Amino acid sequence: MNIDLLIDARWIVPVEPVGVVLENHAVAIDAGKIVALMPRAAAAEAFTPRVHRRLDRHVLIPGLINLHTHAAMSLLRGLADDLPLREWLENHIWPAEGRHVSAQFVYDGTRLAAAEMLRGGITCFNDMYFYPKAAADAAVAAGIRAAIGIVSFDFPTPYAADPDDYLLKGLAARDALRDEPLISFCLAPHAPYTVGDRNFARVLTLAEQIDAPIHVHIHETAHEIEESIKVHGVRPLARLHRLGLLSPGLIGVHAVHLTGDEIALLAAHGCSLAHCPTSNLKLASGIAPVSELLHAGVNVGLGTDGAASNNRLDLFQEMRLAALLAKGVSGRADVLGAHQALHMATLGGARALGLDAKTGSLLPGKAADLCAVAFDDLALSPCFDPVSHLVYVAGREHVSDVWVDGQARVEQRLLLGIDESELIKLAALWQNKICPRDVT
Amino acid sequence: MNIDLLIDARWIVPVEPVGVVLENHAVAIDAGKIVALMPRAAAAEAFTPRVHRRLDRHVLIPGLINLHTHAAMSLLRGLADDLPLREWLENHIWPAEGRHVSAQFVYDGTRLAAAEMLRGGITCFNDMYFYPKAAADAAVAAGIRAAIGIVSFDFPTPYAADPDDYLLKGLAARDALRDEPLISFCLAPHAPYTVGDRNFARVLTLAEQIDAPIHVHIHETAHEIEESIKVHGVRPLARLHRLGLLSPGLIGVHAVHLTGDEIALLAAHGCSLAHCPTSNLKLASGIAPVSELLHAGVNVGLGTDGAASNNRLDLFQEMRLAALLAKGVSGRADVLGAHQALHMATLGGARALGLDAKTGSLLPGKAADLCAVAFDDLALSPCFDPVSHLVYVAGREHVSDVWVDGQARVEQRLLLGIDESELIKLAALWQNKICPRDVT
Repeated sequence: MNIDLLIDARWIVPVEPVGVVLENHAVAIDAGKIVALMPRAAAAEAFTPRVHRRLDRHVLIPGLINLHTHAAMSLLRGLADDLPLREWLENHIWPAEGRHVSAQFVYDGTRLAAAEMLRGGITCFNDMYFYPKAAADAAVAAGIRAAIGIVSFDFPTPYAADPDDYLLKGLAARDALRDEPLISFCLAPHAPYTVGDRNFARVLTLAEQIDAPIHVHIHETAHEIEESIKVHGVRPLARLHRLGLLSPGLIGVHAVHLTGDEIALLAAHGCSLAHCPTSNLKLASGIAPVSELLHAGVNVGLGTDGAASNNRLDLFQEMRLAALLAKGVSGRADVLGAHQALHMATLGGARALGLDAKTGSLLPGKAADLCAVAFDDLALSPCFDPVSHLVYVAGREHVSDVWVDGQARVEQRLLLGIDESELIKLAALWQNKICPRDVT
Repeated sequence: MNIDLLIDARWIVPVEPVGVVLENHAVAIDAGKIVALMPRAAAAEAFTPRVHRRLDRHVLIPGLINLHTHAAMSLLRGLADDLPLREWLENHIWPAEGRHVSAQFVYDGTRLAAAEMLRGGITCFNDMYFYPKAAADAAVAAGIRAAIGIVSFDFPTPYAADPDDYLLKGLAARDALRDEPLISFCLAPHAPYTVGDRNFARVLTLAEQIDAPIHVHIHETAHEIEESIKVHGVRPLARLHRLGLLSPGLIGVHAVHLTGDEIALLAAHGCSLAHCPTSNLKLASGIAPVSELLHAGVNVGLGTDGAASNNRLDLFQEMRLAALLAKGVSGRADVLGAHQALHMATLGGARALGLDAKTGSLLPGKAADLCAVAFDDLALSPCFDPVSHLVYVAGREHVSDVWVDGQARVEQRLLLGIDESELIKLAALWQNKICPRDVT
């Protein structure tokens, strides 16, 4: 059978079925989709590929899914670190956003972020930011899969005037991109403390009408919970429950502060969470109870958050940190093992986005979203267990090849169709606007 | 003035004085020592260098100091992950060590570890393992600075028969290496639960005689503290105090579980600690109270621990994780900032080892132990603050050049004088011995 691409690999970790590691197998790809996984020799007999890649010292995994980011904030990377959260937000991030965020800022920042993510093995990201049309255009230009947030706030910003305006602009972006196979949309009401009950109700109606997930920050800080009790009489999650938002379509982001009852509630309603361990530590929000959430059966994916609060858009870092933190805070070295961390960074994210029929694991029929990690490095030697090494040893610097929808986007560590030096210059231009040298 | 080497850099962070970032300066080096730091133009006038390196998009920092490792355990990297601590140790690590550890194992494993560390910007490591002579020889061969532990236990191992034998063998190693400028020695009694009072007393006497630090695991787990109370009636730190070991020469490793009184005691005696955040999480030991220790004035350095419990010998990872964890557990985003994390990874380690007159910062008169980090990467763009980027964005993969004692050991990302592919093959040979493929 003639096919587009055959990839041989030393190891393949398909993520589904759970825990499987295939040795010396091949993935056959045609028309952007996975056709088969089988032993190398059998694949060589069965298929006549247009392109045949041999990855003799590599692990091939599903492309990673970044379940929460504000991609365009890559242009604010490291603008103001080591500051208390309120000072960081109110004196640095919000003023910079107020002055500089525009459709061009979002387009440029998202291109920069997409390049960083692709090179680090991320093939899909879930975005929440202003000017979603610009973010979607940048994702299409980069060739990365994206779930774009139809963002909304109660208050006006340079992007939109009122709650209706946010939703109308978001829906217009969705209409404009409806023929792009890599782009899907989520409703993205920012957070319970920036979105009122009427706005949430409208978001929910719309989400049901267009069958889209709802992507919302939730229980990131203890302060936010106290304020909700003062203003609404209940904790934010209880408020979302009262408003009817808890469902398999909900992607709650952060969820650092949860009671046992709240964990059970999330599980009972089939909600998903985006765990962002680096951001939660860096902004001093705390540590989400991930092993309890997984134990309760809640679907958990991993997010980097934006580059202003991480400051790497690096899911290898988040996988490792998630696994390490869960052990450290539970006192049990056997919780959140390497296979589970990889599952969170792939299929967990895909399920949350409603994209698990399309991506997140290497099953025939799914899109060929793939990441190859080269193990030909003394820092990865010896290698007793490739999945353990993926999580505890490898870094995004070991990613050698990336495919999205069967298209090569990274080849032998080089981005295809993206000019890295142009992006570096673009970032420098924005830096100079945001923070002129003579002022700092 | 004729000198060996002049290095121009976009930014230089000398660590001393604290918080300083020099722009477009140069470091002049001769006979292995730093001669001067001055603006580029002035340096070009003052010096005629044999070699002139121009690092136009780089940050130059002191070489990093790994304050706690078991270097040879690189050969056991990832042998048994995601297991409870006791099962990991008793069923996997100790049996593998019992069967395989020899002088050759230590020599080969330390060469592998030294190569990994040098390439990641580490110019000095503090080692605790069997066969210290073999470890020292490997460090000399690699051209990395090392403080080698004169290890001791109460019980016999294939390496030594009894407490006297451990110390005699360690002293013999020290005698054999006494003319090696890169090598110093520490006494290294393993831990309070493996070393008895008589053995500690002998170690202390010896440490005073040869004027060497004492490098010892302390308060790594809650279990160890409970056992000490049962057996000795006091917590391990109180026991070391009673034995007279608390002094500026003490390097306590881990110190995860500390009371406020114990923090004050460590500060009052001028002790140093080696903080190993990744290992402490991975083995589920917990999180050391680092911001409290720093606040109390305790000198803290950073360690990777061995590759079996980390599994990267990567101080960039430890810097970032230390800074993130301190914020996450204290609830304050402004604790343990980037400059302080870099200080821990450099001068903090040098002070603990009694090597701060020689290394740990870029002062004239010190050895030229240097690490250059290349910022010409879109993942490091934009760059508002190079020190923040060093800690929160950069990784060891951005290290471009490393010098130890003025000798180039890494140049444009390539190890000099070390054959990477030979080390990868060597690791594979050991892997096959340790874990034959048909058994796993």
